[in-house]
Amino acid sequence: MSNCIDFYFDYSSPYGYLACERIEAIAAKSGCTVVWHPILLGAVFKITGQKPLTESPLRGDYAVRDFSRSAREHQLEYQHPAQFPIGAIAASRASLWLRDNSDPQLRAKTADFIHAIYRAYFSAGQDITDATVIAAVAGSLDIDSEALLLAIATQAVKDSLRIEIEQAISAGVFGSPTMIVNNEPFWGHDRLEQMERWISSGGW
Amino acid sequence: MSNCIDFYFDYSSPYGYLACERIEAIAAKSGCTVVWHPILLGAVFKITGQKPLTESPLRGDYAVRDFSRSAREHQLEYQHPAQFPIGAIAASRASLWLRDNSDPQLRAKTADFIHAIYRAYFSAGQDITDATVIAAVAGSLDIDSEALLLAIATQAVKDSLRIEIEQAISAGVFGSPTMIVNNEPFWGHDRLEQMERWISSGGW
Repeated sequence: MSNCIDFYFDYSSPYGYLACERIEAIAAKSGCTVVWHPILLGAVFKITGQKPLTESPLRGDYAVRDFSRSAREHQLEYQHPAQFPIGAIAASRASLWLRDNSDPQLRAKTADFIHAIYRAYFSAGQDITDATVIAAVAGSLDIDSEALLLAIATQAVKDSLRIEIEQAISAGVFGSPTMIVNNEPFWGHDRLEQMERWISSGGW
Repeated sequence: MSNCIDFYFDYSSPYGYLACERIEAIAAKSGCTVVWHPILLGAVFKITGQKPLTESPLRGDYAVRDFSRSAREHQLEYQHPAQFPIGAIAASRASLWLRDNSDPQLRAKTADFIHAIYRAYFSAGQDITDATVIAAVAGSLDIDSEALLLAIATQAVKDSLRIEIEQAISAGVFGSPTMIVNNEPFWGHDRLEQMERWISSGGW
């Protein structure tokens, strides 16, 4: 029984956003739960030598066109951000603080927070590197934004993001989104269907 | 009415091979014909700064695993070649000589030749940079292999490959396979289904 999809994403990743909007419905249909893993691709790209997609000639033009096209196919809002890419360090730390929180009420808000941050960036045109934006998102979900901002400045939460990224790299993650199901990795928004077929068929 | 899928591929590309095995059935279902465009990604990578996928840390491991996995999903033979990647210059020139030939009987053998070359490399473990292998493939299809080897040494055929690659780059092609349907580009074996939905729905 597969019952867990490890979902690795970078808040600066358009395909991460699109997959994030769809992953829970697919997981539910597949009898799986989603475990959220915010990471920073900047650290990964130091190892792989990759550059942000949109900075590459030819590939960049296609990517920007495809972000919108893939969003339209799934009736998702998409506005390519004016500031792109970004390093969403504070938002990533905040997500981990929620996910790993000792308070179950806060833990339960993790998915809503992740969706709200992603939508703020890719749909509402907000600057999610700005602490006041993160605080506003938290506030809208009845999360104590002062406590959140204090928490993400602590060494423990800073370390948790570093460790999260190291573990992702150890697991072979090199792009966003990456879904890992029972050690089987699937990279890319365009692999969600293949992942679904893999789960329902038991693999091939 | 869309009636033409421009199919760009590099003979050294595993995903090009997998898509090549599937494109005609999809085209037939979609009421389209396939136009074959052999290219050399080496020339494209000089512009995009990309490296061969398998030479990239983390990404390479995933890619090699995924080539076989994606082949198995579609019941296709796949043996990762011992010599990889390669620059399949002669095979690409031969394909263009067939495709653009004044003899309709030779033109009609283009698709069979492309499939046979791809299978020689990715299924039979043959060295398709070797002229004797290309000649043998040609012979197996009742193509005059001596005429073919003479033709691909001519300046006209050499130029045709250079021009083909330049035109591909002008059309925005940066990877293999790329399918272009009515100016709409789809990159990757894993986008065949999306391309199919695009054609059948008239786009979105």
